[in-house]
Amino acid sequence: MKSLCGVLIVATLASGLAGTVGAGFKPAPTAREAAIRNVLEAQVAAWNDGDIDRFMKGYWNSPATTFAGAAGLKRGWQSVLERYRHDYPNRQAMGMLEFSDLEVTMLAPDAALVIGRWRLERAQDRPGGVFTLVFRKFPEGWRIIHDHTSVMLGP
Amino acid sequence: MKSLCGVLIVATLASGLAGTVGAGFKPAPTAREAAIRNVLEAQVAAWNDGDIDRFMKGYWNSPATTFAGAAGLKRGWQSVLERYRHDYPNRQAMGMLEFSDLEVTMLAPDAALVIGRWRLERAQDRPGGVFTLVFRKFPEGWRIIHDHTSVMLGP
Repeated sequence: MKSLCGVLIVATLASGLAGTVGAGFKPAPTAREAAIRNVLEAQVAAWNDGDIDRFMKGYWNSPATTFAGAAGLKRGWQSVLERYRHDYPNRQAMGMLEFSDLEVTMLAPDAALVIGRWRLERAQDRPGGVFTLVFRKFPEGWRIIHDHTSVMLGP
Repeated sequence: MKSLCGVLIVATLASGLAGTVGAGFKPAPTAREAAIRNVLEAQVAAWNDGDIDRFMKGYWNSPATTFAGAAGLKRGWQSVLERYRHDYPNRQAMGMLEFSDLEVTMLAPDAALVIGRWRLERAQDRPGGVFTLVFRKFPEGWRIIHDHTSVMLGP
């Protein structure tokens, strides 16, 4: 127990030092990537809590946010929210969401492309596919300004 | 006829002067947008000439180029080329391509997001849908590094 505490203290100190050393420096690309991945992880957690409003925090809250897919193009945060509420009216329809194979490509210090796979585990089916997200950094953090999601055909 | 010639000469001079005045200056966002739209127009022209190889010049010639859709994720310029050759083996399958409702969002001086609609006019059908393209500027010009294309369901 004593040695575990020692490890924890050392780890805490190291993390604190790293924070101090890093303060005032521009974040490295990996730190930006981590911030973007955190937004997506928060979205998955919100979805799996059945909380679409919290899930929507990952999107830029603007009439200019766009969402593309097999149904065409939707424009505006509010319209994306309504689409989610319409398509996923309850926990059973929402299922359990999983993102995988995420690839973050930094396009600029405040812009990134993310591609990845999504999967819903539901009682009756397991829909999934690929998505393309374009993130921009705003004062409030990284947000999705454009989402293009496809449902994969076949198994 | 004389006055038409006059208009043409004035227009040509004005365009020449604009080019001179602009030389050495950073291109305005609209000039970058125009360069990106030119790549897409060249792609449409190549497609409608039945020339997939020329169409492919719009894509970054790299193993890192990605193409997402209902079939999942394809990686690499060569694999995208092969997919096009497989899916569109002849002029009849290629039909006549049209892009519309293009929206170019500059993300950085060398990166842009383009969303738009596509439509194929073919003897037997009129498939269409929306696409998301991420462009980067390379020494050879603006090229697509990621393409996410959906086929629209319904009419």
